[in-house]
Amino acid sequence: MKLVVIGGVAAGMSAASKAKRIIRDLDVTVFERSNYVSYGACGLPYFVQGLVPKAEDLVARTPEQFRKQGINPFLRHEVVEIDHENRFVLVEDLENHKRFKAQYDKLVIATGASAVRPRLPGVDLPGVHVVKQVEDGIAIRNTLKQGAKRAVIVGGGYIGLEMSEALRERGLDVTVVELMDRLVPRMDNMLSEEALETLQRHGVNVMTGTRVQGIEGDERVLRVVTDAGSIDCDIVILAIGVRPNTKLAQSIGVKVGPTGAIEVGADMQTSVQDVYAAGDNTQSMNLLTGKPVYLPLGDIANKHGKTAGIALTGKPAEFKGVVATAIAKVFDRALATTGMTEAEAKEAGFDVGTVSIKSSNQAHYIPGKAPFKVKLCWNRADGRLLGAQVAGAGNDALRIDAIAALLHMKGTIQDLRGLDMAYAPPFSPVWDPVLVAANVAK
Amino acid sequence: MKLVVIGGVAAGMSAASKAKRIIRDLDVTVFERSNYVSYGACGLPYFVQGLVPKAEDLVARTPEQFRKQGINPFLRHEVVEIDHENRFVLVEDLENHKRFKAQYDKLVIATGASAVRPRLPGVDLPGVHVVKQVEDGIAIRNTLKQGAKRAVIVGGGYIGLEMSEALRERGLDVTVVELMDRLVPRMDNMLSEEALETLQRHGVNVMTGTRVQGIEGDERVLRVVTDAGSIDCDIVILAIGVRPNTKLAQSIGVKVGPTGAIEVGADMQTSVQDVYAAGDNTQSMNLLTGKPVYLPLGDIANKHGKTAGIALTGKPAEFKGVVATAIAKVFDRALATTGMTEAEAKEAGFDVGTVSIKSSNQAHYIPGKAPFKVKLCWNRADGRLLGAQVAGAGNDALRIDAIAALLHMKGTIQDLRGLDMAYAPPFSPVWDPVLVAANVAK
Repeated sequence: MKLVVIGGVAAGMSAASKAKRIIRDLDVTVFERSNYVSYGACGLPYFVQGLVPKAEDLVARTPEQFRKQGINPFLRHEVVEIDHENRFVLVEDLENHKRFKAQYDKLVIATGASAVRPRLPGVDLPGVHVVKQVEDGIAIRNTLKQGAKRAVIVGGGYIGLEMSEALRERGLDVTVVELMDRLVPRMDNMLSEEALETLQRHGVNVMTGTRVQGIEGDERVLRVVTDAGSIDCDIVILAIGVRPNTKLAQSIGVKVGPTGAIEVGADMQTSVQDVYAAGDNTQSMNLLTGKPVYLPLGDIANKHGKTAGIALTGKPAEFKGVVATAIAKVFDRALATTGMTEAEAKEAGFDVGTVSIKSSNQAHYIPGKAPFKVKLCWNRADGRLLGAQVAGAGNDALRIDAIAALLHMKGTIQDLRGLDMAYAPPFSPVWDPVLVAANVAK
Repeated sequence: MKLVVIGGVAAGMSAASKAKRIIRDLDVTVFERSNYVSYGACGLPYFVQGLVPKAEDLVARTPEQFRKQGINPFLRHEVVEIDHENRFVLVEDLENHKRFKAQYDKLVIATGASAVRPRLPGVDLPGVHVVKQVEDGIAIRNTLKQGAKRAVIVGGGYIGLEMSEALRERGLDVTVVELMDRLVPRMDNMLSEEALETLQRHGVNVMTGTRVQGIEGDERVLRVVTDAGSIDCDIVILAIGVRPNTKLAQSIGVKVGPTGAIEVGADMQTSVQDVYAAGDNTQSMNLLTGKPVYLPLGDIANKHGKTAGIALTGKPAEFKGVVATAIAKVFDRALATTGMTEAEAKEAGFDVGTVSIKSSNQAHYIPGKAPFKVKLCWNRADGRLLGAQVAGAGNDALRIDAIAALLHMKGTIQDLRGLDMAYAPPFSPVWDPVLVAANVAK
């Protein structure tokens, strides 16, 4: 059996590896447009910051390691066409522009997502970057090496926040410009406020409710023009989101869902037989709403890929879905969310109860304690938990996973209140902040 | 209405506070034998270590603060007798040995537990300590001030481990002597091994399978005699467990359960009408086994006390029980457990599936990552999770709470496998270690 995988990052390489481990003599070919396979794109801010010294460090497994496993990854090779009727892909070698065909029995489309580059004047000026691929990280480091001192980050989502930390830690003046009236606008207000306070405390200039109108420069970027004035800068990071790469899939009739990403079954098979999709080009099922959701996150891409890799071999496999758990480090704070935000829950028609509390992450007498905040949302009608956000100082925010587990199990605020959570003075106050919130919710 | 509370630490003061907040004109009197109320006994190792500078720092709320709230705590006052028929307690003022009566309508018995002092020759020598009350911590600090350089800790449970860290960090030579063949013998083997490796890596001498036969000295302790030879020392810490203080309760016919601790309903009322029990003298319901369990832990004592405080006012309140979650810091490692150990699950008659994995607590490319270990136990018949242990480097071990949540909800290994956990490179590998374990369990 021949397997072709389009895209060799998290989802694609997971699918390839898993399938090959199940069918030892599977003929697996992976085509990857970039110079890297199997890299952790989520690590790019830390590469830019310098915490991760070399681009190669982001790579989980090298092409050589895959080859030893019997998987053939072609770098700098782009699939330009799929002929599904005849089961082959047309591949272009981006080095010499030669094209060739590759046959398949099963196809995994893991084409990922592309960073949105808004159609703004000056958006293609040198010094204007996105953060998606390893090459983007290298390009940003090169701009920094050329002496960039003032950065403008367009977009105050997770990537924007992580990049603001990375550049601030490298000593740059950093301004974050966000169109909406608060940071991380997809997250709950509580996390927006925490993000704002954290950025400002670390000397980052934050402009919310501000529209970027253009980017100006000559040989290089010189300033960002907004409706609140111009900001001089040497480097611009565009972090306004990503769009799923679905064109290739759609060209053979693969259905795209209401999220704009590829629609799949629990086995990651698309609407077209023998064609699987996985990763940042593919939507997931939101287990709380029963509706599809687009969450381009590394851990989900891996789960997609693994499931596709098993399912395409004929073995049973399913990825049931997500409750939308996420976490981000922003300087000395960790922001985490699971389930619906208050706004989302209201929009979904629930009579939403909410509570927000501020506690700390250790017993009061242990030095070095930090604030820990919890917000809970539940359905007043039956107490069912709908979502939660926490803000802590690091791994303490992994408490979000306990609430995520309850969301998976359709737990209530009463269930949360009764939870037997781990306590020792270095790790928690005697009343865990999550339990404090659940008690106040009474 | 008059409320008398016997014992003013975690459970007693929680009950008193909660009841007073509900019934504003409640007459609340608390009798506490020691010099302190409302202190965090779990913080004693950190007080001994010096991280917590003053004994007073361990106190959550002072007697003055309680008085402002309208609660009257009598320090150094011991209830020596209860006349439940006539609804009064006989109290001795330990300072002047005067006795007086105090009337009550409702009684909360929160007499806690006492550290076990084995009947060994020399056990009362100066320099031999237990770790239970603030006064014990002060006594240990006094012995250290007198120049103690070599410590023997008898007992390799959580307190023994925490004390070994405290004394080692103060520069002492430390030997831990444990009767059983492994450390933390009530915990799973995996945590025993982790504890042993951690103690040895930090220069602590560990002697398992070793019986203490006596303690020798003249004016002060000089050595501990074991069946594996004598160990010279200047200080001995007895950390071989605690026993619930139930004598007073039993004197009025309060029933004690099979654990040796006081039996209560979900409202914390004992077998005697109007008499409540809470804290380290009281057993809890194990939600997994449906059997009572004795867990003298600070967070549980607080929950007991709060529930008793509400219930005695006539309002509905229940403490359903525990799944037995616990965590301990041991030097640079955190050991956490929830549910049953493998041995306990087998003893309970389950056909136990287990898996143990070693991963790390961050993405591979983030500097400073530490090993993260997970062990899972489940029932092979239906996949139901029975328990888990994790070992991490700090708050990362709070992942145990996600598994605790699943245990509460009767989740399966399949549920765990599908969990949408928080991922970002500084906080987790892209496959959370817990999910890795659940996947291997397939």
